[in-house]
Amino acid sequence: MINGMKALNRSLRWGMVGGGGTSQIGYIHRSAALRDSNFTLLAGAFDIDAERGRAFGQSIGVAADRCYSDYETMFAAEAQREDGIEVVSIATPNNTHFPICRAALNAGLHVVCEKPLCFTAAEADELEQLCAEKNKVIGVTYGYAGHQLIHQAREMIAAGQLGDIRIINMQFAHGFHHEAVELENASTRWRVDPRFVGPSYVLGDLATHPLFIAETMVPDLQVTRLLCSRQSFVQSRAPLEDNAFVLMEYNNGAVGTMWASAVNCGSMHGQKVRVIGSKASLEWWDEQPNQLRYEVQGEPVRILERGMGYLAASALADDRIGGGHPEGLFEAWSNLYRRFAQAMDATDRDDSAFLQDFWYPGVHAGLTGVRWVEKCVASADAGAVWVDC
Amino acid sequence: MINGMKALNRSLRWGMVGGGGTSQIGYIHRSAALRDSNFTLLAGAFDIDAERGRAFGQSIGVAADRCYSDYETMFAAEAQREDGIEVVSIATPNNTHFPICRAALNAGLHVVCEKPLCFTAAEADELEQLCAEKNKVIGVTYGYAGHQLIHQAREMIAAGQLGDIRIINMQFAHGFHHEAVELENASTRWRVDPRFVGPSYVLGDLATHPLFIAETMVPDLQVTRLLCSRQSFVQSRAPLEDNAFVLMEYNNGAVGTMWASAVNCGSMHGQKVRVIGSKASLEWWDEQPNQLRYEVQGEPVRILERGMGYLAASALADDRIGGGHPEGLFEAWSNLYRRFAQAMDATDRDDSAFLQDFWYPGVHAGLTGVRWVEKCVASADAGAVWVDC
Amino acid sequence: MINGMKALNRSLRWGMVGGGGTSQIGYIHRSAALRDSNFTLLAGAFDIDAERGRAFGQSIGVAADRCYSDYETMFAAEAQREDGIEVVSIATPNNTHFPICRAALNAGLHVVCEKPLCFTAAEADELEQLCAEKNKVIGVTYGYAGHQLIHQAREMIAAGQLGDIRIINMQFAHGFHHEAVELENASTRWRVDPRFVGPSYVLGDLATHPLFIAETMVPDLQVTRLLCSRQSFVQSRAPLEDNAFVLMEYNNGAVGTMWASAVNCGSMHGQKVRVIGSKASLEWWDEQPNQLRYEVQGEPVRILERGMGYLAASALADDRIGGGHPEGLFEAWSNLYRRFAQAMDATDRDDSAFLQDFWYPGVHAGLTGVRWVEKCVASADAGAVWVDC
Amino acid sequence: MINGMKALNRSLRWGMVGGGGTSQIGYIHRSAALRDSNFTLLAGAFDIDAERGRAFGQSIGVAADRCYSDYETMFAAEAQREDGIEVVSIATPNNTHFPICRAALNAGLHVVCEKPLCFTAAEADELEQLCAEKNKVIGVTYGYAGHQLIHQAREMIAAGQLGDIRIINMQFAHGFHHEAVELENASTRWRVDPRFVGPSYVLGDLATHPLFIAETMVPDLQVTRLLCSRQSFVQSRAPLEDNAFVLMEYNNGAVGTMWASAVNCGSMHGQKVRVIGSKASLEWWDEQPNQLRYEVQGEPVRILERGMGYLAASALADDRIGGGHPEGLFEAWSNLYRRFAQAMDATDRDDSAFLQDFWYPGVHAGLTGVRWVEKCVASADAGAVWVDC
Repeated sequence: MINGMKALNRSLRWGMVGGGGTSQIGYIHRSAALRDSNFTLLAGAFDIDAERGRAFGQSIGVAADRCYSDYETMFAAEAQREDGIEVVSIATPNNTHFPICRAALNAGLHVVCEKPLCFTAAEADELEQLCAEKNKVIGVTYGYAGHQLIHQAREMIAAGQLGDIRIINMQFAHGFHHEAVELENASTRWRVDPRFVGPSYVLGDLATHPLFIAETMVPDLQVTRLLCSRQSFVQSRAPLEDNAFVLMEYNNGAVGTMWASAVNCGSMHGQKVRVIGSKASLEWWDEQPNQLRYEVQGEPVRILERGMGYLAASALADDRIGGGHPEGLFEAWSNLYRRFAQAMDATDRDDSAFLQDFWYPGVHAGLTGVRWVEKCVASADAGAVWVDC
Repeated sequence: MINGMKALNRSLRWGMVGGGGTSQIGYIHRSAALRDSNFTLLAGAFDIDAERGRAFGQSIGVAADRCYSDYETMFAAEAQREDGIEVVSIATPNNTHFPICRAALNAGLHVVCEKPLCFTAAEADELEQLCAEKNKVIGVTYGYAGHQLIHQAREMIAAGQLGDIRIINMQFAHGFHHEAVELENASTRWRVDPRFVGPSYVLGDLATHPLFIAETMVPDLQVTRLLCSRQSFVQSRAPLEDNAFVLMEYNNGAVGTMWASAVNCGSMHGQKVRVIGSKASLEWWDEQPNQLRYEVQGEPVRILERGMGYLAASALADDRIGGGHPEGLFEAWSNLYRRFAQAMDATDRDDSAFLQDFWYPGVHAGLTGVRWVEKCVASADAGAVWVDC
Repeated sequence: MINGMKALNRSLRWGMVGGGGTSQIGYIHRSAALRDSNFTLLAGAFDIDAERGRAFGQSIGVAADRCYSDYETMFAAEAQREDGIEVVSIATPNNTHFPICRAALNAGLHVVCEKPLCFTAAEADELEQLCAEKNKVIGVTYGYAGHQLIHQAREMIAAGQLGDIRIINMQFAHGFHHEAVELENASTRWRVDPRFVGPSYVLGDLATHPLFIAETMVPDLQVTRLLCSRQSFVQSRAPLEDNAFVLMEYNNGAVGTMWASAVNCGSMHGQKVRVIGSKASLEWWDEQPNQLRYEVQGEPVRILERGMGYLAASALADDRIGGGHPEGLFEAWSNLYRRFAQAMDATDRDDSAFLQDFWYPGVHAGLTGVRWVEKCVASADAGAVWVDC
Repeated sequence: MINGMKALNRSLRWGMVGGGGTSQIGYIHRSAALRDSNFTLLAGAFDIDAERGRAFGQSIGVAADRCYSDYETMFAAEAQREDGIEVVSIATPNNTHFPICRAALNAGLHVVCEKPLCFTAAEADELEQLCAEKNKVIGVTYGYAGHQLIHQAREMIAAGQLGDIRIINMQFAHGFHHEAVELENASTRWRVDPRFVGPSYVLGDLATHPLFIAETMVPDLQVTRLLCSRQSFVQSRAPLEDNAFVLMEYNNGAVGTMWASAVNCGSMHGQKVRVIGSKASLEWWDEQPNQLRYEVQGEPVRILERGMGYLAASALADDRIGGGHPEGLFEAWSNLYRRFAQAMDATDRDDSAFLQDFWYPGVHAGLTGVRWVEKCVASADAGAVWVDC
């Protein structure tokens, strides 16, 4: 149970790039980072419009002289300060993630970044290498993965409660973009513009979430080949897809499926992961994240509830309130940020023992997603054929 | 509302091949046929063991001299009687469906047959041609398709309530055969033996059900190509699959997916069909057949209930009891048999006007399934590649 | 598994009073009785209009001379025949149940009767006594109670899996009569007319169902006192209630609640029984009768499914098809009629050993309901005060 | 959409009594108050052990000299400071709420207090009068009532979408205290000790929550009389009840029921409110607070989702993230605290126009609960008889 105690005996000095104004994503970053005092917001380049960014920063308590016009200026200026920021969060359009990440690492900062970290496997490799060189952490905000019952699943699978893993079905399939809402809605427009989001829409924007949740649950499996079929049902979105199906084969003989969609009319999120083993299955749904279905063949289905004593210790550690009370996405993000703080602190202390078994979505997780999307797009563009991974 | 009134002003003279003893499938055939007096059971070759079959037939009221040792004898003898059977139902192992169907048609009988009708497209063509020549009906027992809300979906889709159809997701994925239960359980053994079931297990046994439900809902779409990946997680079942995924493309640009599995641990039936259009989606689940989800994008999800006044007339016509009271699979089968009686009677009367728009799973539906399985197996065996349909 | 085998080595000679034409209730009686050949329909006084009744009877295969104008004639005439009926089912308006039951018993017939058997405890006592004198069975069609999972609950409670029983919450609360639909709908009109239904509407028509289900689950408990508050939200129904709440105290210290309503807008049936013990709870809902929730405090909720091997033998005995396939209300009724046949046959054979532990809703169950309604009305009419039972 | 913007152009100077250490309730108070910077935590008497309280206060950033040993000292000292606190939150055992509230109001502070505010109607009247005299706000933390869909219900009911309100069913029935867990668990012990919680357990601790939610949904109704039956299934808890049922009559002819329980084995929270009108019903469940069932008689059930454009403006105003993403209890509390800040600010400004229609759970709401519990206990102790309200 967290109860507001800090994760560390210090609070990390923190800045932001983007996320100003009424940005929904900026708000959830701040909510998560500031919760429990693991981070202190000291600086920011909050907006592409410098004046607006400065006004925003001050409105939330950032000193005027630490509200910067752009990230380069911020990184340079903060590096000069004794009390300069140690960590920066990046909440800007996707196409800027890579250069800002690289600059931040080069400026000696830890990074928290929205996915995707970048658009190509080559960029991904560069970031991973840079993290290693600079001994820095990139925390990737696969926010859903902070929900505790995903970690319950991870424990149960590791303990063999499912038997051999055979099938993983993943989906993130909402209906909000069933028609060309981007014509009227600026906040959707950039999501379907390749200049901002790279080579894919729903594969990158949606599918990488349940993909990472599945990786968290079943960390040992590797995709060996995949096949992707993608569609642009709203034709103006082509070549970006608003719907896609992916078949995957894993190195242990298991198979996987992914359905990503923004045209699944009537569905809210539709993000689900079902892992099927030779004895039992587990299923988690992000719209009811406090429940986990556990289905042993030949026994009644069980519905596990967050916060209950029968869960694994690791699934209880991040609770903020007792079972029965619903926790939501803000808690899941807070759990991530708390873990980012712990990982950054341990990295600063070169505490490799701590880091060895410590779960958080780091640079490698981010890169796995980027590479997976790249393979999917290659498969789809070749006519939905199998490609090796 | 049916209320037990006969569909016709006569009752069809009916016989059975197989389905004797404690056969579960034989029982549901009899329950459905005899309900509401649309058929009268007069003859049978109920068992491969002639004595046992005769004893069984008599126990359920069939005259001793019309309990036959085999179907050939029955067809010949009944053809000699003034009051000989007009229709025969075939409830035998899959590998015998084709010869018995052919013999029945040649003997001038209408047929009710379990799916699959046969194992190859060539056989399928032969049966379809024979039906036309002999002016006979084959009713195929896609039993689930008799549930009324499937026809509500059909009406709503025809009326354009979903807009353009974009995606059809189908699944029939249970967990009952997650391990080699066939070693202990004779009633499962034949299902995984190619000598009895032909070239596939779950594709033919399970997938053809939701495939036909989807065809019923969206009759205009044609699969143009498909790709199938199949697995034998219980290795002793190879080459028959106990799990399969199929991707499909339709002639209107829509895409489809099918998941068939007998190793989906913890799931009871898991038979679902979700049809997604440009405006709305519909979803039906065979374990709760009295409900139909209707999800218009931008509106609250609606859950339609069987028997309610807001449904289409065709979705109310087959009700046997008011809304709220659950109907089950026996009613769905009864609806099919009732329609088989109507189709056979209209065929006898050459009432093509009646038949033109009259829905029932006939020979063509059966053959579509056979062809689809054949294509799936071809795709899978070639390495899960696309094949044209 | 039933599989259509008869319960007995004979088929009971059966007649009906009422239930002709398009009567929904008549149809479900016939469906249930004729299923599996436990009864043979030989006679009837199907309609208050003798001609219409005769026409109906013949249309469903009853001999013309055994289609009678009224029940008195039928009972007299059939008593003269060697092959006269042994059992009669009564599917007439409530106010006629008592005289017809009495006449049938006096005519030496077993009876199947809709609830309520009568309107007063005095009448109830008379019927119970008459059954004993004549050595006859009255089977009461508490149809829902035939669902198998209710018997699973009974077994689990008897085995102590819930611990001491503390609370029983019952409800049957639909919304179909939220306004004065009886003005337009004749089939509702008699239900809210005291001349036909006696001193109550929803208490007698609805509440007695979950009351009996609870009695079936927890047979040992006796209500010691109760308090009933009833309302006529559609005022024209007064003094009959369209909504009622009842509090009950049981002889073991447990408490119970009942909610009966016809004005619960938007609800289909809303028939549920939840039994809470010191260790665990069970909950059953008639709209999804193939599932039973089992909730052990401190463990994940389990959802039991009909037909599964983990159920008690008595909960599997009445299955007609494997788990996963939904059975519905027609099967529940068929289970009752099958048991009625067994009870009647055993009574004819004076097989008291068989009858001792054999469950079916008999005259005593019917009378318990009548007495309970009488107490509820007395409580309500005195201002919703406690009355001893 | 809130997006972290402050509700006011100032941040209220805030202190706490109690809630230190690992207190779960203290944490949710701080999370809610500090979110969005509507309050700044400046002082506290966090613990009955002064040293522990001081250490805790400093650990979360409160200046050492403003960590007080007790509330009297804090109120006196802060009143002397120019920058003294304006508001105090009370998160102490129930029996201390009344004296601390009174002292705080007398010290010129606004108050946020856990329910129950006090134990008797006389105390309640005194607090209400004192608020009026001092022109101060008491915000009562009926935390669940901050969920947005409750306000959607309020709007729909006010707009007549349900027709006349007829029935309100309320429950808060968990199973966590099914046995005497208080023997081992200190955090439960005080809840069942009359010295700390006054004359009731589940009525005060649980029932007042759904009672207030129902008041929020249907503000016009007044309870005119009620009847309460309460039980101590764990006998050592007597005279405090661990289960209770209440029947209520309202001034418009509607009726209500309440079920409060700590022995509802297997249930997590079981907090639900169902409001039934002459046309439609609404149902809300605190474990899935992002959904609201809307059931119009004769139409399919609709499931409304938080964040969707079809909701009322007042149900969207407090959103922090888009629909589909689950918000949880922390957001509901944050909504309350935000509204407390707005009410306090408007009260300071004597902005009665703002306050007139502004919803928040204030002193009157708190007192309604106290009076209701008092009546329930009186009814129960007199043998579960009706008492006027």
